[in-house]
Amino acid sequence: MQDKYRIGIDLGGTYIKAGVVNSENKLVSTYKCPTLVSRPWQEVVNDMAGAAKAALESAGLSLSDCVSVGIGSPGIVDARKGTVVFSSNFHNWIDVPVCETLSKLLDLPAKASNDANCAALGEFVAGTAKGYDSVVLLTLGTGVGGGVIYEGKIFEGSAPGGAEFGHISLHAGGKPCGCGRKGCIESYCSATALVRDAKEAMLAHNDSKLYELCRGNADNMNGKIPFIAMRMGDKYAKEIVDNYILDLSEAIVSLINIFRPEIVLISGGISGEGTALTDPINTFVKKYAYAGDKARIPTVSCAKLGNSAGIVGAANL
Amino acid sequence: MQDKYRIGIDLGGTYIKAGVVNSENKLVSTYKCPTLVSRPWQEVVNDMAGAAKAALESAGLSLSDCVSVGIGSPGIVDARKGTVVFSSNFHNWIDVPVCETLSKLLDLPAKASNDANCAALGEFVAGTAKGYDSVVLLTLGTGVGGGVIYEGKIFEGSAPGGAEFGHISLHAGGKPCGCGRKGCIESYCSATALVRDAKEAMLAHNDSKLYELCRGNADNMNGKIPFIAMRMGDKYAKEIVDNYILDLSEAIVSLINIFRPEIVLISGGISGEGTALTDPINTFVKKYAYAGDKARIPTVSCAKLGNSAGIVGAANL
Repeated sequence: MQDKYRIGIDLGGTYIKAGVVNSENKLVSTYKCPTLVSRPWQEVVNDMAGAAKAALESAGLSLSDCVSVGIGSPGIVDARKGTVVFSSNFHNWIDVPVCETLSKLLDLPAKASNDANCAALGEFVAGTAKGYDSVVLLTLGTGVGGGVIYEGKIFEGSAPGGAEFGHISLHAGGKPCGCGRKGCIESYCSATALVRDAKEAMLAHNDSKLYELCRGNADNMNGKIPFIAMRMGDKYAKEIVDNYILDLSEAIVSLINIFRPEIVLISGGISGEGTALTDPINTFVKKYAYAGDKARIPTVSCAKLGNSAGIVGAANL
Repeated sequence: MQDKYRIGIDLGGTYIKAGVVNSENKLVSTYKCPTLVSRPWQEVVNDMAGAAKAALESAGLSLSDCVSVGIGSPGIVDARKGTVVFSSNFHNWIDVPVCETLSKLLDLPAKASNDANCAALGEFVAGTAKGYDSVVLLTLGTGVGGGVIYEGKIFEGSAPGGAEFGHISLHAGGKPCGCGRKGCIESYCSATALVRDAKEAMLAHNDSKLYELCRGNADNMNGKIPFIAMRMGDKYAKEIVDNYILDLSEAIVSLINIFRPEIVLISGGISGEGTALTDPINTFVKKYAYAGDKARIPTVSCAKLGNSAGIVGAANL
């Protein structure tokens, strides 16, 4: 029997990444091209179609081998209508009909969702969460994205703009967030927040390993250096990492008390720290999840599909 | 045509309240009796059956006029299994099979859910949220309960113990919460939290209206006095009420960014303050909900069914 392939597109601020998955959710080919976000949206969608075709070609397949295409986009996506409502990455995109347009270009049914939702779905069908009944996923990067699999499908919220976990208060009135509020999870748990705090500590302590690893230049700070410095015995780095993990743990317990998933996944660059990150979080979760062991205590793990989670998830919309 | 009636039971820490609703969700009769929580659960469930029969009798109806019974219970309810998993009100209740037991006693199909979920459902089918597509409800009382109607039905979370909005961090590491964490929404937005802060202010300022209205005795403080004192021009009361409303607004924006409901309802005694409470919250929500007017901004209103929301909701499980 001939396999049925599906196309997944991860629309990013820098690259359009297209991939083809087979019926077992194995990624058989990928292709990427620059997004060039300042162009009219029609050109970007055109290149999404081009990337899809190029991915197919490199696998020796054609559109007739495919049954569907899915798009994961940053920002607010109207999954029901198949539009990108708004995205801070794409300044001129307001209610862009990505699905309708791409569907015509490829002659395939198209669906769309937020990129973090797609990452959650990708991990659910083919990654760390495979075999679990439900997932909450947090992507820790420039911002904090959220995705949930509830009752076997993506939890979109009742209208576009749901599951925006980066914008739940954690320290209400605290550090400013890009959304206009102060104290959101994003202001404490994004990689950006970790880098911000590590830069401050580095500049205040030129005797620190943080300073040494950045060669005295704050521009060299990244999300790995605080963990490396901590392992080298730097007390400032340890304090920053401990606080970061504590805030992330608090955020995760809140999400557990809302969604009660079977597993919580952390993705994004920071998740490369693995159990150095998840061990203390799991300890915190066991201690503080509401009602303790009288209710379900999920496992907290790192996502494993990396960048391809978004493509695999989009292909499964 | 003969009407089909349904029984709703609101199981509280003090009273068992049973009611009968008709096909238009009008409450045709109610009956209440003391819960006496320290008894074996079998006796409590027996009295739930008795209360249901008494409510029917007072409406001139019998069990044969009814098609179902629903139970709203405090604590963690397993709606899928029909059990009360755990409730801090009922210390010896662990995995109590309320539905199975009540179903046998009344010879009717029985369902159960958390009491705040039932209140949300009651308001959705017959209260302030009637005609809306989705609801988030917060009950502000001794604690803070949460209920959500998502895609036309109660959002239970993926396992028992979901939608526990009282136990989302608001000021992580802040004031102690009954759940063991510090800084939960419940520690700032419950009526108990408002009373706590008002008591502190009253004891610190014996020149205040707060002090006068309590006749100098902190035990006389309640959730209404801070609002009354504020309207009398008391600056301490104003500060407390302003902070309370700010915290509640922050909590509500977080819930909007997760669920994107069409309406947010506030219930419990505090909701008697009406627009004095909801006007400033709506202003805050318009300003700070993620993505502003590019996404759906719900209306925040007070629930209107009061104590009967739980009965009507339970009857609709």
